Order: sequence, then structure tokens, then C-alpha cells
Amino acid sequence: MSVAITGIGSLLTNDPELGTITDAAVVFDGDRVAWAGPAARVPAADERVDAGGRAALPGFVDSHSHLVFAGDRTAEFNARMSGRPYTAGGIRTTVAATRAATDADLSANVARYVREALRQGTTTIECKSGYGLTVEDEERSLRIAGEHTDEVTYLGAHVVPPEYAEDPDAYVALVTGPMLEACAPHARWVDVFCERGAFDGDQARAVLAAGVKAGLVPRVHANQLGPGPGVRLAVELGAASADHCTHLDDADVDALASGSTVATLLPGAEFSTRSPYPDARRLLDAGVTVALSTDCNPGSSFTSSMPFCVAVAVREMGMTPDEAVTAATLGGARALRREDVGRLSPGCRADLVLLDAPSHVHLAYRPGVPLVSAVWRAGVRLPL
Amino acid sequence: MSVAITGIGSLLTNDPELGTITDAAVVFDGDRVAWAGPAARVPAADERVDAGGRAALPGFVDSHSHLVFAGDRTAEFNARMSGRPYTAGGIRTTVAATRAATDADLSANVARYVREALRQGTTTIECKSGYGLTVEDEERSLRIAGEHTDEVTYLGAHVVPPEYAEDPDAYVALVTGPMLEACAPHARWVDVFCERGAFDGDQARAVLAAGVKAGLVPRVHANQLGPGPGVRLAVELGAASADHCTHLDDADVDALASGSTVATLLPGAEFSTRSPYPDARRLLDAGVTVALSTDCNPGSSFTSSMPFCVAVAVREMGMTPDEAVTAATLGGARALRREDVGRLSPGCRADLVLLDAPSHVHLAYRPGVPLVSAVWRAGVRLPL
Ligand SMILES: [Zn+2]
Ligand SMILES: [Zn+2]
Repeated sequence: MSVAITGIGSLLTNDPELGTITDAAVVFDGDRVAWAGPAARVPAADERVDAGGRAALPGFVDSHSHLVFAGDRTAEFNARMSGRPYTAGGIRTTVAATRAATDADLSANVARYVREALRQGTTTIECKSGYGLTVEDEERSLRIAGEHTDEVTYLGAHVVPPEYAEDPDAYVALVTGPMLEACAPHARWVDVFCERGAFDGDQARAVLAAGVKAGLVPRVHANQLGPGPGVRLAVELGAASADHCTHLDDADVDALASGSTVATLLPGAEFSTRSPYPDARRLLDAGVTVALSTDCNPGSSFTSSMPFCVAVAVREMGMTPDEAVTAATLGGARALRREDVGRLSPGCRADLVLLDAPSHVHLAYRPGVPLVSAVWRAGVRLPL
Repeated sequence: MSVAITGIGSLLTNDPELGTITDAAVVFDGDRVAWAGPAARVPAADERVDAGGRAALPGFVDSHSHLVFAGDRTAEFNARMSGRPYTAGGIRTTVAATRAATDADLSANVARYVREALRQGTTTIECKSGYGLTVEDEERSLRIAGEHTDEVTYLGAHVVPPEYAEDPDAYVALVTGPMLEACAPHARWVDVFCERGAFDGDQARAVLAAGVKAGLVPRVHANQLGPGPGVRLAVELGAASADHCTHLDDADVDALASGSTVATLLPGAEFSTRSPYPDARRLLDAGVTVALSTDCNPGSSFTSSMPFCVAVAVREMGMTPDEAVTAATLGGARALRREDVGRLSPGCRADLVLLDAPSHVHLAYRPGVPLVSAVWRAGVRLPL
């Protein structure tokens, strides 16, 4: 079964040869892209959809989210943004709620946010554990994430849980020992929050090395709240991505530029915590591959909106609209080492977003406006 | 015909006595609110809708938009955000396109953006002329705006058009003479862009005074790009609103605090031009009534999203989530001197938004996410 989408006013393919095509068409054959090019030369297909001049782009690839959780943290957010003290909050609230939730509740929560992201054009989404922090709760978090996405990340090393507060190294031993053993079969990636107050450089190295030994590929929460060894460690270990990258010195930027690790920037986190934004321009100018993702989580960045991240990246991080949209599609694919998404080249997965706008630039030009008017994932048009 | 909406998890009424009610219900009778209170005490109604724990709030009141235009300015926006020079752009592009458009095209454009705003919860929207700048084109702009909203503003004094570049006072004479005469029957408000490069204090005073004489009520684009006399002039003339208020000195704040003029802040404009934001905190602390609006226009703020403005106001302007949501509803109503919207008190127009969230705080907590799940306007539920 093939479908031709014609009448595309502007088509961003992210294909190095096809580029951005005006008055374009795309043909899907089953779940794959069969053809993309000028509408005048579109090959025959079983079905035809007229885009009416709308812009099309690859589905967004959100390479960083934390969707396996229960509860929310409205009161904490409200207090923070209102300048009121709030002591009961923090990640421990979410850990307690997640541990107390049933599998069915957690799965419904993931399904809800994956669906919400999809309505906003996200056709590939990575999802981490990290609110269980026991062998059982991390294992089930990953199993549940795996019901909703292929990109599952073991983040037992999200934070040291309260019961290990006096002996964090014992928690690292758990994360790299029995917890890893239970979790590795359910994950593709291993991640660690390398930050003052979470895991230091040595602990992070131990977590990632153990994960690699268990067959996982590393990615790192690095340099979000302050300078630290996270980014350099990520590059040294050949991590797919160093995420956040807010506080970088020249050595960090040089390391990223000389390695293959993608810098994944998460402007939703800075937006929602009133923190300074990472400098995407500096990274791009140094030749670093940049991805944009939501970091969707109930504590520091409760957005599932890739269009919002694109708009903020343009406003605050020195990215051009083209760069930001590319980072939210092809950049995310690179951060997940995926060749089949983030592009509309022949052979890629048929993931396409139609915008109620003539150009993908409108994602930045029209901030906050829900522009996504149709989404295909693996060749299937989704009811929005 | 009466409708009871029950099962509202959290109801923001903006009514001084009702406040915010948890586990609430609202009853509409025809196009009016008949009752609001705890769900347990809801009176009988012909029809019953279960909100399923969702939050409800009054429909947004967007008191500042420029929707009568043709064309867009994608290339100009893209160049600005990409650091490339772009000389052909500016408001003149939009004026030329608007003059060249048919009435039907302009009306379709207004309808499109009013509908887009409605889907995002805006149930009252003000709309200005200002891209015609001839007697004919201003008059038809207002007539067309009036097909879509009751809140119509004559903004012949938006900018001096190219053909009057050598003699701006002659343009002011036109705006206060024949153009006003043709336009006044179609408008409720008169507005002027009082700014260096547009109209100075004396010209602005002349425009507003003539408008008042013709039966219009003044509002002013004031102190957006730099300090100036706009805000003080607005207060002196008893304008309903001074809009932008980005560059204020103490005398401006004192004037606003001592008068009845609302300060309408338009964060979309600062977002889309990478300009410093107005300081809402300073105004609120001085006792000034603050409204939030989109300034929706194709040049400097092409968003129609009140939720986006709320989120940015909290992030950037020192507003609490409660203050920002109130400014986007009750504040807008005050800026339009309307008692019947912006609140869910008995007798008010039955304009209500249901959010796919347990609290209106989520409008700031979940930036960019399209949370509006149902909208009633004048008691009629709109298909989204
Ligand atoms: Zn994260
Ligand atoms: Zn304006």
C-alpha cells in the first residue's frame, strides 16, 4: 500500500542531497519513505493526500524524556515561580509516588504523554527510568517504558535515594550490580546524572562502564547545574549524547568537537527553572552536532512540546530556525544513533508532520501556536 | 436551556467572593453563567457535562491583536533570527499586501486567526486596524474586524505610511479628519503608536483627542521600544489601557498606579524580537492592574496563544502563575472595560475553558503543551 502526499508547500527532508524542496511531494510505501521530490515528478501511488500548500518535515525525535512517573509537582512549581519556600518537594516526591503506583497506572501515564507528544509531532521518543531507584521499581519502569517506545534508557543513577543517603557508594554498587542485571535486558541505553549532589565523575564512570559491559550504550546527564566532568567523560567513553551542556568550559567544547558525542540541549529545563540557557551557537560554531529535546519530567521541565523547544532555542540559544528544527529532528536521531528517523530520505521510516503553516520556520515564528495538523508514523496517519 | 458542568477539579472564577473552588461545578443558563460553586451543591440543569477532574477557568480575554492583514513575514523573521540583514521587510510589506488584498481575503484571514485563538481558549479578542493607512483601507479593515469581534480599534495612527513620509503632520490631519470620520462608526476604541519613529506625544494627543471627540475610547501603544510620553499621556487622557509598557521610569509607574489605566503587557513581542521583557512585578507591586495579551501580528509577535503568553510572563516577567492567568482573563476584561467577561460570576457571559490538567497553574507548568480541551463561548460548546 503506497500513499503520495502532494501539494507540500515546503518540504524539509534533512537529506543532504534533497535539502528543502518547495512545491514537493513524498511517497510512502508501507512504513517506509519510497520517494521525496518536486510534486511535478511524483510517481503513482495507491492513495493521494493533498497537503494544500502546508509545510512538511520529518517527525520530531525527542531523545530525552522521563515519562515513567506518578503524581505531579504542581504545588512545588507554583511555589518556586511565586517566590515561596517549598521544602517537601523535589525528586523524592516523585520517587515515592512512582514506587506506590501500580504498573497499570505507570503504563497509562507513559501512554498519555507519548500520545500528547505525538499530537505535537514527536514520532520517536526516548524514555528513561529513574524514579524507581530499587531493583524492582527500576526494572518495571523499563519494562513499562518498553511497552511504548524502543528507545529505553536505564537511569538507576538518577539520584541517590533517601535510604542510601548515608552510603551513596553502596547505591552505586547496587546500580552497577543487581539492579543493572535486572534492568539491562529491558534497555538499550545507560545514563547517569553526573552533577554535584548526584553522582561524581568516578561514580558516573563506574555506572557507565558497568552498563557498557552489560551491552548498553552510554549517554550522560552532564553539566546542567554547574561545571563538572560529565561532558568530558561522555566523550571519552564514546557516549551517544551528553545532555544539558549548560555550563561548559573551552575544554568541554573542544572535547565535544573532537568526538562523536552529540550535545543534547533541553531548553524546557532552563525555561521552567529560570536558569541560564546553554549556548547552542558556541557549540554549532565549534562544529558540534546539537540535538534539542524536551526533558519531559514533572520536576524541572514538564513540557512534551518539541515545537516549544524549537521556539525557545531560537529565542534564547542563538540558533537559527533552520538549525533548531534540524536539531529537533535529525539531531535527535543522531543522539539516538538512528539512521532511519529524523530524515525523509528514501528507505527511512515514514514519519512525517504537516504544519498548518507554509514553512517549518513558523515553528519559531508562531511560538505556542499548535501548528501540527497531521502526523504520520511508520506510514500510518494518526488521528489527532 | 441550562447546562451544568460538574466534576471540575479546580475552578478559577476570578470572582472576589467565589475565588478558586476545588471539586466545583458551573451552571450556564443560555449564554450566561447562572451559578458557580462546590459540585456537591450544584442545582439541577437540563444537561450535565462531566469535566472528569479537569481544571476550568474563564475564557481568555486577548485585548490586543492586529488580525486584519494579508501576507506573512516569514523571510524577515527568519533573517532576523539568523543574524542576516533584511532590508525589504517591515510593516510596509504588510501594508502593501493588505491594501492589495480583497475584502474576502482579509475577512478569511481574521476568521482564521480568531478561530485559532478560540481553539486555544480565547473567547474575547480585540482587533485593530492599522495596515490600511488610507481612508478606504482603514474603514474596510474595521468593518471586516467587526464581522468577527465586538472589540474593534481604530489604529490609523499605526505608522506614517510611505506616501506621507515627507509630511507626517498631514497624515495626522488625515487620521484625525476624514479617516476618523469614516472609521469612527465601525470602532469602539482609538489607538496610537506613540513611539520614536512613529507618533510623538503631541501627535498622539491629537489623535486620541480627536477620537474621543468622535465617541471612541482611547488606548495607547506606549513605551515599547524606549522611554517616552505614551504611558503618562494614556493615564492623563483616561485611556482604558497602555500597551507594552516595556520601558518605564518611576513617574510612569506612579502615573499608572494613581490612575485607572490598565498596563497591558505583550510578552510575545519581546519573545519574537529578542527584546528585554517588561517588569510585571514592579507594576503589580505598585498596585497597577496588569493585563496579558498576544499582540498577534505578522511582524513582531505572530502568536495567537494566550497560554504561551502566560508561560512566558511567569518565566520572564516576575509574575506568579496565578497572577499571569488572572491577567490573561480578568486583566484583559479590565483593559476592555468589560464586566461580563474574564470572570465566572453569575450573570457573566458563559465563556469557559476546560484544561487537560488538574489546575490552571499547568498553563505555566506545562509550557507549549496544547492543554485546552474544551471551550464554551456564550454558553455554546465549540467544536475544537
Ligand atoms: Zn533528564
Ligand atoms: Zn500592537
